Amino acid sequence: MPLISAPELTRFTEEILVAAGVPPHKAAITAASVVASNLRGVDSHGIQLVPFYVDRLLAGEVDPQADGRVISESGACLVFDGQNGIGQWIAETCCAHAVRIAGKQGMALVVARESNHFGAAAWWAQKMRAAGQIGIVFCNASPIVPPWQGKQGRVGTNPICMSVPGPWLLDMATTTVAAGRVFKAFLNGQPEIPAGWALDSEGVPTTDTAEAYQGMLMPLGGYKGSGLAMMVEILCSVLSGGAMPNEVSGIRSHGKAARVSQAYMAIEVAHFMPVEEFTTRMEKLVNLIKTAAPAPGYDEVLVAGDPEWRTEAERRQNGIPLAEGNWEALCKTAARVKVAAPVR
Amino acid sequence: MPLISAPELTRFTEEILVAAGVPPHKAAITAASVVASNLRGVDSHGIQLVPFYVDRLLAGEVDPQADGRVISESGACLVFDGQNGIGQWIAETCCAHAVRIAGKQGMALVVARESNHFGAAAWWAQKMRAAGQIGIVFCNASPIVPPWQGKQGRVGTNPICMSVPGPWLLDMATTTVAAGRVFKAFLNGQPEIPAGWALDSEGVPTTDTAEAYQGMLMPLGGYKGSGLAMMVEILCSVLSGGAMPNEVSGIRSHGKAARVSQAYMAIEVAHFMPVEEFTTRMEKLVNLIKTAAPAPGYDEVLVAGDPEWRTEAERRQNGIPLAEGNWEALCKTAARVKVAAPVR
Repeated sequence: MPLISAPELTRFTEEILVAAGVPPHKAAITAASVVASNLRGVDSHGIQLVPFYVDRLLAGEVDPQADGRVISESGACLVFDGQNGIGQWIAETCCAHAVRIAGKQGMALVVARESNHFGAAAWWAQKMRAAGQIGIVFCNASPIVPPWQGKQGRVGTNPICMSVPGPWLLDMATTTVAAGRVFKAFLNGQPEIPAGWALDSEGVPTTDTAEAYQGMLMPLGGYKGSGLAMMVEILCSVLSGGAMPNEVSGIRSHGKAARVSQAYMAIEVAHFMPVEEFTTRMEKLVNLIKTAAPAPGYDEVLVAGDPEWRTEAERRQNGIPLAEGNWEALCKTAARVKVAAPVR
Repeated sequence: MPLISAPELTRFTEEILVAAGVPPHKAAITAASVVASNLRGVDSHGIQLVPFYVDRLLAGEVDPQADGRVISESGACLVFDGQNGIGQWIAETCCAHAVRIAGKQGMALVVARESNHFGAAAWWAQKMRAAGQIGIVFCNASPIVPPWQGKQGRVGTNPICMSVPGPWLLDMATTTVAAGRVFKAFLNGQPEIPAGWALDSEGVPTTDTAEAYQGMLMPLGGYKGSGLAMMVEILCSVLSGGAMPNEVSGIRSHGKAARVSQAYMAIEVAHFMPVEEFTTRMEKLVNLIKTAAPAPGYDEVLVAGDPEWRTEAERRQNGIPLAEGNWEALCKTAARVKVAAPVR
C-alpha cells in the first residue's frame, strides 16, 4: 500500500463530502477532523468513517444544511440543539461557545443534543487547548456496551478526553478498546482480537473477531468502566435533554437519526495561574512520570498523547499508510458520488 | 465482633479527635465523614483512618487550628490554600465555595492545595448534590502507583467521584482497587489478595498481601488507568499550584506535611433544566441500565452507588460491624489520648 499525504487525503475526503451534499465549509472541518486522526495513528477515527458518513448523508439520515441552535445560555452553561446536523460542525460550534464563555467566566459547560458522530474527541478538546484552556470532551454513542453484570448493550463506548496546555493529551473510550478497533480488525480480515476486548452476543468473552463484531465491547476494568461510561452518559444525554442511550444509533445503522449527545467543558487556565506557568508545571509533572524506571520488558515510560504525537510527526513527514480495505472503501464511496480518486 | 451504631461510633471518633487537639466543630465534620464511609460499607475510608489521623495530629504534622484561606476567586474559579489544616475541614469549606459559586455562575471549580486526607470523596460530592448540583470531586494522593510501563510509584490512587440528583453515585480509585483494600487485608491478616490488585516492589504482579503492602497498586485496565490518574493529578496539583505527586505524603508517613491537592467541581442543574426533570431523567437512565438481562452467573444489574446504599440501609438499622483489627486500633488510639472506649 503506497503512502498518501495528509493534504491529499484531506482534499479527497473534502471532495467526497461536498459531492455527498455537505456545504464546503462543513466538509473542510469534517475532513480536517478525520484526517487528523489518521495522522495521529488513530485510524479507527480516520477516513474509515467517511463511507459510513456518506451512507447516512445519501440516505437523508443526517441533515448537512442544519446549523444547530442555542437552546439556552446561562452563566457558564449552554445547551445546544444540533438539529441532526454534521457532527463536526456541531462540535466546532460548541467548542467556540465553550471557549468564549470560559474566556469570560473561567469555565464553560456546553452540552449538545441531537448531534452526530464528530470523529475523535481529541480534535475538539484541542480547540480549547489552543485557546489556553483545559478542554474536556465527552460523548455518548450507540448502546453496544453492556453494563457490568449485564449481557445486553445499554451504553456506548462513551469516551473521556482531556487536552491541556502542555505535553499530555488523553482520549480514551471507557471500554478496554474503542469499537473502531474491532471494526478495523473485521474490515481487514484479522480472525482474532486480543482477550479482554469484547464479549460475544451472549455476553461471554471472546477473541473471535467475527463474534466480537456481532457482540459487545467490555467495560474498562469491569464495574469501574461501567461507572465511567455512566458518568459520561449523564453529562451528555441526561444533562442536555437528549436521547437516552437506547435511542442513540451508530454510524453503521440505517433509517434513523443518530441522536448523539456531547459535552464540551472548558477551563480558562489564566483564572488559576498564567498559562506559561501551567505549561511549565505540566512539563515538570510529565517529566516526573517519564523518569520512573521502566518495568521489566519496557524501554521507557510514556504518557497519554506520546504515541500519537510520535506517529503524527512520522506521518506528516512520510505520509499516511492506509489499510487496503479502508482505501478501497473510500474509493468505492468516491465513485458512488462521482468523485475521481487521486492517482496512486 | 458486636455491632456498633453509627451515632455511637461517631461520638467515640469525635471524642478521640477532640482529645487529639481538633476543635470540636472540625472533629464533628471529620467524624461524620469517616463514619459515613463505614455506613456505606466502604470500611477502607472509615474509622480505620482515625489512628493514622491521630498519629499525624500528635506528631504536629497536621495543623488542626489552620482554617485555610482563599488565594483567588475569579468567575467560576477559586484557588484555596488549605494551610495543612484538617482535610475534612478544607473539603467542607471548598464545597461551600463551590456550591455558592455554581449557584450564581452555573458552574464552579474550586482547587485546594496544601490539604490533607479528607476521607472518601463521595461524602463531599454529595454536598453539591444536596444543593441540587452535580458534584465532581478529585484528589491526588501519595505516589504509590507506577505509571503504565513503569515500576516506580509516581501518582496516587487519585479517585474520580461524581454525585448527582438521582439514584447513582460514583466514587472510584483510578487503580483496580483503592489502597485501603490492600491495607485492610494486611491489617486483618489475610495472606492473599486477588490477582490484578497490586504489583510487588519490583513492579511484578503479586497476590501476596505482604508483598502488595510493600509494593504498588495497578492502574485500572493498564494504560487507561494511568491516563485517568494523570487527568486527576492535573486538575488537582497542577491547576492548584500544589505539590507535585512526588512531594505528597500518605497518612501512614511521618515527619512531613501531606501536601495533598483536591478539586471540587459543581454544576448547577437548574441552569440546564429543572432539578426535578433531571432527577426523572436519571431515574429513567438507571432503570434502562438495570433492565439489561443479567450475564451468566449474576442475578441482577447494579449501578454505581447501589451496593453502598443497600449496605447503608442495613447498617443504619442493625449497626456497623467492624473488623477486630480496626476496632482494636481505634481503642488503642483512644487510650493514647485518654478517651475511654464505649462499653461493648
